[in-house]
Amino acid sequence: MADRDLRPTRRSRVKRHHERGSHERARVHEIIDATPLCHVAYVIDGAPHVTPTFQWREGERIFWHGSSASRFLRQVVGRQVSLAVTHLDGFVLARSAFNHSVNYRSVVLFGEARAVPAEEKVERLRSFLEGLFPGRWPTLRPVSEQEIKATTVLSMPIDEGSAKVREGQPIDAEADYALPIWAGILPTETRSREPIADPRNLEDVALPDHVANFAMGWKRP
Amino acid sequence: MADRDLRPTRRSRVKRHHERGSHERARVHEIIDATPLCHVAYVIDGAPHVTPTFQWREGERIFWHGSSASRFLRQVVGRQVSLAVTHLDGFVLARSAFNHSVNYRSVVLFGEARAVPAEEKVERLRSFLEGLFPGRWPTLRPVSEQEIKATTVLSMPIDEGSAKVREGQPIDAEADYALPIWAGILPTETRSREPIADPRNLEDVALPDHVANFAMGWKRP
Repeated sequence: MADRDLRPTRRSRVKRHHERGSHERARVHEIIDATPLCHVAYVIDGAPHVTPTFQWREGERIFWHGSSASRFLRQVVGRQVSLAVTHLDGFVLARSAFNHSVNYRSVVLFGEARAVPAEEKVERLRSFLEGLFPGRWPTLRPVSEQEIKATTVLSMPIDEGSAKVREGQPIDAEADYALPIWAGILPTETRSREPIADPRNLEDVALPDHVANFAMGWKRP
Repeated sequence: MADRDLRPTRRSRVKRHHERGSHERARVHEIIDATPLCHVAYVIDGAPHVTPTFQWREGERIFWHGSSASRFLRQVVGRQVSLAVTHLDGFVLARSAFNHSVNYRSVVLFGEARAVPAEEKVERLRSFLEGLFPGRWPTLRPVSEQEIKATTVLSMPIDEGSAKVREGQPIDAEADYALPIWAGILPTETRSREPIADPRNLEDVALPDHVANFAMGWKRP
């Protein structure tokens, strides 16, 4: 169960843009776009911190946001961060404890976090929401100046880091395949379930298609 | 969509053991035990790094493991780490972009990573596997001395950090409730699907109960 847990069956360096093929870039983008959840690590007074938040991608930059009053966001502007997007795809059950493993896809990035300029914030936030729920933004009460001011949007380049993927069946010691032990994959997935309408919705408001047809992940608007 | 993303509806400090009630400790444990996936942040040469890995809990310590050859594990022994366990429970769709939010449960811990002594490693790894798949360990080909040596097990105390939970419907500005906009929760969950047997399994090997009845998360063996 040990050393295979994080030993990928495929590993892609995303370091240096010009070295990357378009196939490799597409794989990195696909992993990032498949869930909004990410974890951002940063250093404060020499100590590591990690914070879960939502991300979205536009081209070769990754974005996240939060309250302008947030200590987390204020602390990372202009600093080095490491950002991970991880999908747990399944448990890999082998014939020995040692060869148990995990199927997963992950991208870990390194780079400097920059604040998105005030005049670009609305467009970035629109892209975030529209990428998750296409068509929703125009139906909403418009954002106010004050709300935009209260929101900080950060970004970092998708430039340095690595993508790792493990997939498929366990890899056991050859002798172990003769043992009468069930081995295989227990796949896992993160999915959405039935929506729960707010009891305060007006009576004649119907469930919109962007909720009814939701598929996990961000789609370029 | 901004400042509520990480504004919890409940926040529990886990700082200082003696301050905590048993109810609060139970909530922290429940969040940790509900998924093995975690993200560990650490500092190398002043720069933040974050790595996805699997964790399990025994009492008031949290454990993770990997190859003794892993740069990640070697680098964190004796150092400060921050470890996050996060559940994405749903998208919260409001009547304004600003009040969109996320339902989630998370625990973020801070502390020093210590290596588990050689003589305790097997028992900890057994506990990890048995907590996920009760009854599997005794059915496996026994671990070898070499495999144990090749495996590093780390732990940190569940002592300093915080648990955050957001749940329930969006909280909109009072005037916005009069708008004809669908609001509500789109719940999400991470679940297991149908197991996929290894094609190399012996013919008479049946699917074990610990796979057929798997429920996401770690249960005290």
